[in-house]
Amino acid sequence: MKSWQEYKEEAWNRILRDREIGYLDPDIFDVLEVFFKKTKSFTQSSCSGRIVIVDAVTPWDRKNSSIIFKNHLGISGDDIKRALESSVVWNLWLIVQGPILHVYAMNEDEAWNLIKIARQAGFKHSGILSKNEKGVLIELKTGVRMVHLLKAPDYSPIQDPGKLAEVANKILKIGKIKLRKLKEAIEISSTTHNVNVEDVKEISK
Amino acid sequence: MKSWQEYKEEAWNRILRDREIGYLDPDIFDVLEVFFKKTKSFTQSSCSGRIVIVDAVTPWDRKNSSIIFKNHLGISGDDIKRALESSVVWNLWLIVQGPILHVYAMNEDEAWNLIKIARQAGFKHSGILSKNEKGVLIELKTGVRMVHLLKAPDYSPIQDPGKLAEVANKILKIGKIKLRKLKEAIEISSTTHNVNVEDVKEISK
Repeated sequence: MKSWQEYKEEAWNRILRDREIGYLDPDIFDVLEVFFKKTKSFTQSSCSGRIVIVDAVTPWDRKNSSIIFKNHLGISGDDIKRALESSVVWNLWLIVQGPILHVYAMNEDEAWNLIKIARQAGFKHSGILSKNEKGVLIELKTGVRMVHLLKAPDYSPIQDPGKLAEVANKILKIGKIKLRKLKEAIEISSTTHNVNVEDVKEISK
Repeated sequence: MKSWQEYKEEAWNRILRDREIGYLDPDIFDVLEVFFKKTKSFTQSSCSGRIVIVDAVTPWDRKNSSIIFKNHLGISGDDIKRALESSVVWNLWLIVQGPILHVYAMNEDEAWNLIKIARQAGFKHSGILSKNEKGVLIELKTGVRMVHLLKAPDYSPIQDPGKLAEVANKILKIGKIKLRKLKEAIEISSTTHNVNVEDVKEISK
């Protein structure tokens, strides 16, 4: 059976590999890093927040769906215009997702500690998802979300793609700002933790 | 300090009071009831799923926002048309929310048990939110959601209110079906549990 430390190393190596092949979100590496720098946590799967346009019956569908557009940094009016020109099988949804992080904590105390920090940084929808051999799995999530019906086979509203893109980008950006805040808060908590450890060492001398 | 049972009774009395004054969602009482019938759980705050139209900068805003429309059973094209005719301060969002239940479990085993049942019934986004003197607080939530930008001060797309209402109602209904499935699954689990208890009694005679 693998040790907790081995799981952590494995996860880190996968992130390095994903970054190399361009599979990692372009603006998440330094955020993941701060979790790995902490002694009792590591991240599993994460998303920095993104905009997708998907053709699907319902926006959360994974089967019966096809992705028309995906970008972690933003969308332009022209991107939306192009999507609107395509023919639609089910429904065309413009979805802005805020950042989501899945983090393994070594134990429950650390899990609650991370959840508390995350909630204060704006990740209000955070909680414990499960417990297994890798530790306590937590999900850190904001309420940032837009799920806009762009088009359907019998529904082609006359929209203003430029304005829609503007609002979608604004929503995306709020998520990115929260992600930066989370990174800073985790960093500060690590520093504080280290200082405390040093204090204890001093005292115990 | 109150006992767990006293907290449960208090929560039940509040539900009865809320129902009497018409504050409870019209289609949730029997769902809450099955949680109370279980020996180790009770619900705290819950929503059966609803459609709202809100004027707010971002759809998750609580301050700087005003609710234009709210209904747990559906929306009509005329409701949307009326909302579109009103003047907008920030942005007009049409939001469909799936059901959300907050449940206190007496202990962690019961919490994981409920989460497992809920996930199987389609409440994929379920987890533990906190632990306190009332027990283990879990959130049972689906991925059902629509967050549609209806209108902004400088954005008045020509929409088809009837078609939008149709899609919104369809999304809402999927949430309601999941809620029914959850109710049945919790009921079945209670029956199974009771049978087991009887078995134990038989054996211990």
